[in-house]
Formats: sequence, C-alpha cells, structure tokens
Amino acid sequence: MLAALLNGQSESIGLGVGVEDRGLAYGDGLFETMRWANGRIRLFARHYARLQRGCEELGIPTPSVSLIQQEIDSLARPVEHACIKYIVTRGAGGRGYRGSATVQPNRLAMLYPPTEGANDGIRVRWCATRLARNAQLAGIKHLNRLENVLAQREWDDARIAEGLLMDTEGELIGATAGNLFVVIDGVLVTPDLRFSGIRGVMREHVLSQAKRLGIATEERALWPDELVNASEAFITNALRGVRPIIELDGAALPDGSVALRIQQAVAAADE
Amino acid sequence: MLAALLNGQSESIGLGVGVEDRGLAYGDGLFETMRWANGRIRLFARHYARLQRGCEELGIPTPSVSLIQQEIDSLARPVEHACIKYIVTRGAGGRGYRGSATVQPNRLAMLYPPTEGANDGIRVRWCATRLARNAQLAGIKHLNRLENVLAQREWDDARIAEGLLMDTEGELIGATAGNLFVVIDGVLVTPDLRFSGIRGVMREHVLSQAKRLGIATEERALWPDELVNASEAFITNALRGVRPIIELDGAALPDGSVALRIQQAVAAADE
Repeated sequence: MLAALLNGQSESIGLGVGVEDRGLAYGDGLFETMRWANGRIRLFARHYARLQRGCEELGIPTPSVSLIQQEIDSLARPVEHACIKYIVTRGAGGRGYRGSATVQPNRLAMLYPPTEGANDGIRVRWCATRLARNAQLAGIKHLNRLENVLAQREWDDARIAEGLLMDTEGELIGATAGNLFVVIDGVLVTPDLRFSGIRGVMREHVLSQAKRLGIATEERALWPDELVNASEAFITNALRGVRPIIELDGAALPDGSVALRIQQAVAAADE
Repeated sequence: MLAALLNGQSESIGLGVGVEDRGLAYGDGLFETMRWANGRIRLFARHYARLQRGCEELGIPTPSVSLIQQEIDSLARPVEHACIKYIVTRGAGGRGYRGSATVQPNRLAMLYPPTEGANDGIRVRWCATRLARNAQLAGIKHLNRLENVLAQREWDDARIAEGLLMDTEGELIGATAGNLFVVIDGVLVTPDLRFSGIRGVMREHVLSQAKRLGIATEERALWPDELVNASEAFITNALRGVRPIIELDGAALPDGSVALRIQQAVAAADE
C-alpha cells in the first residue's frame, strides 16, 4: 500500500480501523476497487452507483459523490496510475449483530500501485469452491468475501490468471475476481447474477459498449457445458479490463473477434 | 467496550486494526463470544475446538490455547463477570483476495460488560432474511455475517428477543444469534447445520447434557411446520444460556419440561 485516508485523515504511522468496526466484526460494509489513470477515476459514475445501491441494500448512509471523489483525488493526485481501494463500513458500535442505532459509517481510501492492464489472453481453471445463493445479497460488492478468498487459495500456479466459479446448484457465475462473458451463436451472454456474484462495473460497461456496437447481448442463467459451445469467452474486471480466455484447465478455447472489438470500444470510450 | 488487546498489546487510546487487515477487507477470519464468570471462561474447551476447526477450514494458523487463555485472563482478571469477544483474522497483506503468502494472523481480544443470563421464556418472530447454503462454510463462526446483521435489522421491538431463520430452501436453521432445539414426540431435535448456521458451543453442550440425562436427541434437517407439532422449543447461546420460546409471532408455544431439565444440567455442569 502506498497511502491511505481513514475518514479523510491521513496518518503516516499507525493508521488503524477501530477494533469495534463492524466491517471487521461482520463484514458489514462494501468496497470498490477502482483504476486511477491520468488524474481521474475510470468508470467512477458506475462505481459510485454500485456503492450507492449496496449501501441502500444494507441500510448504510452513502457517503456523497463529492466527499469520495475529494478523498481519492487528494490521495492519488501525486501519481499518474494507481489502484484505489475504497471501503465503507456501517461504523463502530455495539457488540452484537444489531449494533447501535447511532453508528456512523467509516470511510477508508487506500492507494496501491497500478495493476498491469493487458489485452492478451489468459489461462483459467475450474474452482472447487462454490458460491452460495442468496438473492438478497447478490450483485452488491459487500465485504463478505470468504468464498472468493478460498477459491483463490485453490491454486498457486502464476501461469493461471483466474479461476471459474459455479454456485452451489452448478450455475456458472464468473471468475474469482471478474465477470464472465461467452459468445454463443453470435450472442454475447453473461450470467444474470440473480443469486450470487458481483455486478462488475466493467461488466456493465461492456454490456453498454456491446449494445452500441450492435452486438446482441443476453443476461441469463449460464451453465458450464455451454462453454463447450461458445465461440469465445472472456473475463472483465475494472482494473484488468477485458481478457480473452485462451485455455481452461489445459484445453484451448476458441479465439473470437468479439473480445477484440469490445477491448477497442472500451479503450476508446471516455468513461 | 471495557478494554481490548491487539496481538497481546493494550493501548488506552487509538487501538486500531491495520487498514489492510483481511478481516476487514473480506471477513477473512473467525470469532468467538465467550462468557467470563468467576475467574474463568465458561465452555472454553468447546470454544477453542470450534475456533481451531474454523482456522483449519480457512487455512489460518490457530493461535495456541495458552496464548488465547493468557490474553483473556490478563484482560478479564479485574472483573467477576464479563463477555469476551475474540477475533482471529488471516492478518494484513495483499490487496487481492489471494493475499500474501507470508501473512501472520492477527488476534483481537475485547472485554464487554456481561450479558444478563436468565431462564425465563422469550418471544421470537420469523425473519424474512434467508441464510445461503454453502456446505464448505457451514458450522464455523467466520466473520462473514451480513445475513445475521440484516436479519436483526428486521425488527426494533425490544420485547422480541430473537428472530428465527430459514435457509434459502426453507429449512429451519436457528435464531439470529443462537441455535434452536425443539422437542417432537419426546425427542430433542436440532437442525444439523450441514449447509448453514453456526455450531454453537452451547448447542454442543446441551446435546451432551441431554445424552447424560437420557433424553433422546437427533440432529437432522428441520422444517418450519414441525414447530407446530413441537411440545416445546428453546434457543441456546453461550452468553444467554437456554431460553424457552413462549411466543412465536404472537402465538403461544407450549411450555415443556425438557428446557428446565437442560437448564438445571447446564447450571450444574462444571464446564
């Protein structure tokens, strides 16, 4: 980590979240991981919209756009490229699940070195860890992420960039840290995430770019055997962009042209 | 909170968990909530066994018995009765889900005023929040507890002590902060928690006391309509003990004798 602000305050040493913070106690909060490039946060409006939706779902007051933007600006201004992690928790208070009624949200902004973006293909594998289904929490980027942690602990081979995840019913949901798109009969299909997974900001951006390009899109339940019939597949992530899958558990996946068109559209878009 | 130790260190002001702690970032850790009474931790062997099992499931090195006991003793020694909350996280390190390989667990011990134990009956309600099913995480007391938080936010009436929770398939799992027992045809039945819920230490203690008393017990899938046929029902929790349910959503539940026998056995047991 390069620097951090806790509720707008910087401390070079000993910056710590209160031991009673409910983010620590219960994962009672939300986060965003954003790309800082050339003096601004890419896809910020989408990041903020997701954070706001998550705050509403959990009943946490959403920090204002200007407050978040100001904190990130003051942290990232000295650098050209960076990764920003922003956490909002319900705050500190109360020992039990219920907490106190007067709790105030805590905001934590952290600056990290940039993640290398690239357009070339990646190797992926299947994960044994399954995602639980819960419509109430699906889509939002809350802090209850043990499943993602356990999934990434399944492999240790740096040549494998990502792992694919099914939910407990065997539906294909996405990657451990990204959303999945597959092209089937010319249609760009992505899981609808009605029961699990995170609605990635790059996922939303890709769907919108695809529509602009006249590519048919579909959000629906996706099953693992459909990967066999896919003419191509790629993974999206706000930091890493659009990455075609070239290999799944050692078997080559076909190379298509949709990922390339989407990559070009995302690069050209001013979001 | 009355006092706290972070990795054995006390600080009267500004005790904080590092902003990169994975407990905060992902709920990547475990906790125990224990009753301190007359100079010792009640049911400590059971608390430690659950913590150890959880650490093994998550791949976190378990702090030693003597270290945990020593930290809690030094914190609680001045008081006669207290509630102890003990958190173990994977530690601080790495921005992504994977984290760094060299991460060291963090230990947090917190001292709170005692929770009033009582033997009288309680009123409960149904919660709309459902628990997701995930066999991999079921039973352990990990820090991903948003479902419990959201469930307790469903009501604000202090006369209602607890809420009952089903999982997403409609199985009856327990209370928001306790396990459920029902007596059906003379058998003491409790959900088997194979897909969700927490294996409470008081639940294990009650099962063991029931066996000692010659009461037949069964751990199995339990369904809401079975409450109708129950001759009694009660909720267990390490801090609050054994509490008979006298009312569910305004309807009286029958009063049985099993809860009373279990209460007496728990009070007499030297655990």
